[in-house]
Amino acid sequence: MKHPTTDVLISEVGPRDGLQSVKATMPTAAKLRWIDALVAAGLREIEVGSFVPPRLLPQMADAAEVVRHALTHPGVTVMALVPNLRGAEAALAAGVHKLTLPVSASHAHSLANVRKTPDEMVAELARICRLRDERAPEVKIEAGISTAFGCTIQGVVEEDEVIRIAVACAEGGADDVGLSDSTGMGNPAQVRRLFRRLRAAIGAKAGAAHMHNTRGLGLANCLAAWDVGVRTFDSSQGGLGGCPYAPGASGNVVTEDLVFMFEAMGLRTGVDLERLFAARAVLQAGLPGEAVYGMTPEAGLPKGWTQTRVPAAPGPTL
Amino acid sequence: MKHPTTDVLISEVGPRDGLQSVKATMPTAAKLRWIDALVAAGLREIEVGSFVPPRLLPQMADAAEVVRHALTHPGVTVMALVPNLRGAEAALAAGVHKLTLPVSASHAHSLANVRKTPDEMVAELARICRLRDERAPEVKIEAGISTAFGCTIQGVVEEDEVIRIAVACAEGGADDVGLSDSTGMGNPAQVRRLFRRLRAAIGAKAGAAHMHNTRGLGLANCLAAWDVGVRTFDSSQGGLGGCPYAPGASGNVVTEDLVFMFEAMGLRTGVDLERLFAARAVLQAGLPGEAVYGMTPEAGLPKGWTQTRVPAAPGPTL
Repeated sequence: MKHPTTDVLISEVGPRDGLQSVKATMPTAAKLRWIDALVAAGLREIEVGSFVPPRLLPQMADAAEVVRHALTHPGVTVMALVPNLRGAEAALAAGVHKLTLPVSASHAHSLANVRKTPDEMVAELARICRLRDERAPEVKIEAGISTAFGCTIQGVVEEDEVIRIAVACAEGGADDVGLSDSTGMGNPAQVRRLFRRLRAAIGAKAGAAHMHNTRGLGLANCLAAWDVGVRTFDSSQGGLGGCPYAPGASGNVVTEDLVFMFEAMGLRTGVDLERLFAARAVLQAGLPGEAVYGMTPEAGLPKGWTQTRVPAAPGPTL
Repeated sequence: MKHPTTDVLISEVGPRDGLQSVKATMPTAAKLRWIDALVAAGLREIEVGSFVPPRLLPQMADAAEVVRHALTHPGVTVMALVPNLRGAEAALAAGVHKLTLPVSASHAHSLANVRKTPDEMVAELARICRLRDERAPEVKIEAGISTAFGCTIQGVVEEDEVIRIAVACAEGGADDVGLSDSTGMGNPAQVRRLFRRLRAAIGAKAGAAHMHNTRGLGLANCLAAWDVGVRTFDSSQGGLGGCPYAPGASGNVVTEDLVFMFEAMGLRTGVDLERLFAARAVLQAGLPGEAVYGMTPEAGLPKGWTQTRVPAAPGPTL
């Protein structure tokens, strides 16, 4: 759901991708405060949790409760990740607006990660889409093609294979199909080439860019995706999650820096940077001792900076 | 001097911009080892020092000796920064191939930094060009327009003023005129706009992009500059210099990450990444305890990475 007065949709994945990657479990009350602060900053699509067995990811055990709270914010698309049909049933029961299912383009990664081949995951996606059609036809389903730009296990991932899987997901019923640089191996030329091919293959179902900053190219890759028409970008506040390798390195693209880049370019994200910095403080209070990343929050906004404030949608007062 | 088999020229500024920004003074022998390692990695243009009074910048007191050593490497363009005519005389006497003179587009910054207005600096540049014409006509002179994308003192810098100063430098005799985002305030849209205008105004004299990573946009800004035809990029090994604000934040664009981006895009820099990492170790050995930045050296090269090796130019064995 793109905010009508914005040019680009920032899809905040921190409460899911970030929190499931850190060792500590953020208390539910702290998650809700963080989500409230993200909404107050203007984020209009938030991946709030993952519907997976709590024994595998105890950090996500409260997903249904977090979804219920997030749903109290009007105008916000509440997303959850599901790895399979069972997760989708739980997420639909909780009332999410949108599901996202990771489908790895790398055979080796897919087997290692979910013990299914990519084609078996596409079949699972199709089953989830049929379930959605029966139970909650208004819910949107996104397929996120992971390892689309390279794989830490098999190395190169053939672009033809990425597009083949993406097309299969679209034909299986996904509303949109995004590409994820899960491993931080992508480069701007590849990003432009692959997103162009994606759009040529599946048209308006071509979805979000989910870029990682592992080798410092996160924002350059987002710029490259923007250049070829991508208008939805996943990022994580404080760069939380996405397997950071090293101090100063983040996995996920940092929401603060991404918003700064687009706003500085004159593109409206709907996100207010000062309120976003306030949300960062809420995140830090909820995860004491955890490293957060981002250059713009450290450097501060440039002298003379002005940002047109997009009126915040009504919602709970913080 | 662009290497004939490369697509892009990386101009390494670490030995000048980096070393004059850190408190410690790198011993001369260590500087020479670092420069040798940079040459061995394939860097073909290196800003090796600054000709300024030693009482102002003791780190640069050995500039003439460093230049003399760098000149022993065939095929390498040896550059030095000079702030004025007196510095230019010393640099020419030392035998540099290329001078670079910073000319601030911000009136406030120029007065604060060199106690001259931008127009007075342009006049100084013209005097330096005349000196060059008399004494060493083969030497090239670059004007680097600093604060071209914004100023920490006056805030916004008018683009018309940036172009006016750039044109004045070109008319004053500069061989090329680059644009510097000294303050890390630039964004990709602005970078594209301003470099397009620069080329329209001064044609082939349009020079290097000198980007900072203060707010994380360094590589995105380099990509943007590449897109509009810029083919020379300043960067600093380990991101040394350029006023870093915070841990994990670097001032100058990190050479390692910049080379990785271009090489991953299939563009030849002439720089071998593994040898560049070896040069990073030489830098670190010469400046113990100083923080160096860069994501790619920390994350390592991606699985399946291949780089076409450009034969190293002959030079001293390390």
